[in-house]
Amino acid sequence: METITSTSNQRVKHLVRLRSRRHRDAEGRFLIEGYRELTRAVDAGIDIEEVGFCPSLFLGSNEPALLSAAEAAGANLVEFSDEPFRKVSYRDRPEGLVAVARQFATGLDRLRVDGEPLLLVVESIEKPGNLGTMLRTADATGVDAVIVADPTTDPFNPNVVRASIGCLFSVPLGVASTDETIRWLDARGIPLVATTPFADRLHWRADYSGSCAIAVGSEQYGLSDDMLDASAERVRIPMHGSADSLNAAMAAGVVLYEAVRQRQ
Amino acid sequence: METITSTSNQRVKHLVRLRSRRHRDAEGRFLIEGYRELTRAVDAGIDIEEVGFCPSLFLGSNEPALLSAAEAAGANLVEFSDEPFRKVSYRDRPEGLVAVARQFATGLDRLRVDGEPLLLVVESIEKPGNLGTMLRTADATGVDAVIVADPTTDPFNPNVVRASIGCLFSVPLGVASTDETIRWLDARGIPLVATTPFADRLHWRADYSGSCAIAVGSEQYGLSDDMLDASAERVRIPMHGSADSLNAAMAAGVVLYEAVRQRQ
Repeated sequence: METITSTSNQRVKHLVRLRSRRHRDAEGRFLIEGYRELTRAVDAGIDIEEVGFCPSLFLGSNEPALLSAAEAAGANLVEFSDEPFRKVSYRDRPEGLVAVARQFATGLDRLRVDGEPLLLVVESIEKPGNLGTMLRTADATGVDAVIVADPTTDPFNPNVVRASIGCLFSVPLGVASTDETIRWLDARGIPLVATTPFADRLHWRADYSGSCAIAVGSEQYGLSDDMLDASAERVRIPMHGSADSLNAAMAAGVVLYEAVRQRQ
Repeated sequence: METITSTSNQRVKHLVRLRSRRHRDAEGRFLIEGYRELTRAVDAGIDIEEVGFCPSLFLGSNEPALLSAAEAAGANLVEFSDEPFRKVSYRDRPEGLVAVARQFATGLDRLRVDGEPLLLVVESIEKPGNLGTMLRTADATGVDAVIVADPTTDPFNPNVVRASIGCLFSVPLGVASTDETIRWLDARGIPLVATTPFADRLHWRADYSGSCAIAVGSEQYGLSDDMLDASAERVRIPMHGSADSLNAAMAAGVVLYEAVRQRQ
């Protein structure tokens, strides 16, 4: 097995390039860094082409088993020495694992929802950390799918992978325009519950017990008029402090857990 | 008025030094960067000694009024040109405002709680971003106080100020050991509701309608045995995915909003 010892190696440069959206889109590939993230990707059957690893940076003792599982699923393993690995890592504390994977399809046609599904719709979220945290919370609440409408953040951004701790791979994900999202929900008879600071009704007064899609808008501007107009109901999370005192991911989590409470 | 144009100016060096805890502790000062953060600090009557500002980086038109308010409250204003300001800013997108303030007292003796208060107790939180988000959510839910028990993160860390968007100044804050926290709550007859993945009872089954302190533990280890032993009740947030799929700040927000729902 080859070991990469130079920071000017072509593989190092390739991994660094994949941090930029332009290169990710052009190649149809993306980065998965970290133990938990790679574990979830392998478990979810993500097409991992290559795993770069650096044993001196491993934090635990399960990394070799994870590498074997990735290799068995078809990934090429490449060892890095410390210095080039630190160059490809985008973390302060690298865990010695970074993979290159094929981007997967995110069309709404791949989402399967039966019965009375609970969905999260997030529109135009700007911060990768917020989108990742929302995916993590969607995993915790067991939503049937997350739809990213009118994305401004690429879901394959390394910071989405990181903040989601790999829940990007475990949660069914669709990416579409707001228009397409509204039509898709409408065709399936799934009512939209829109969260907005301008609603009268408090979020716990809505009924989440049947089919329902909870919509949360961008950090700066909230939901679009189109999304608000398409909603069956608008709700507001009560706010004691100023209007900016809840971040978008927290808002999603609070409403999702109220839905879980009602549905249980 | 003096304008700082050199990155090697002593004031620039001083501001950069205050990013480190050692210097903050030695001086009893800390940094407040950003428009929303400084606004909340001025509103809360924080003792602001100096505000560095850089008009070319202002994002809006209200900055001069904020500077006047800070000056009226006793702050010295110092103008920076772009380059030295970018050096003192710890943000990717500086907003042209960074202040030096005196650290304020955080002893439990300054907390005033009457009637049937709702408190948040956070123990040994490691990430400044999580502590800041918890303060922000505490502001949104109108808790009577936040107690930081056995702190591993300095609440005056610039990233706490930032993630809290200044709610560090609007929320009554106490910092103490776990022992002292338990004794303080006990003396006031405020029961602890401990969140832990090992509880049987789901978080919405607890009663938050009277006096109550919701305790959330560190990202890695959860609550200490001392805190768990001192609790009147232990609750668990139901988790569909793996145990790590909710971050500590999200957990705090979900239980706080359940308490708000019950108390309303």
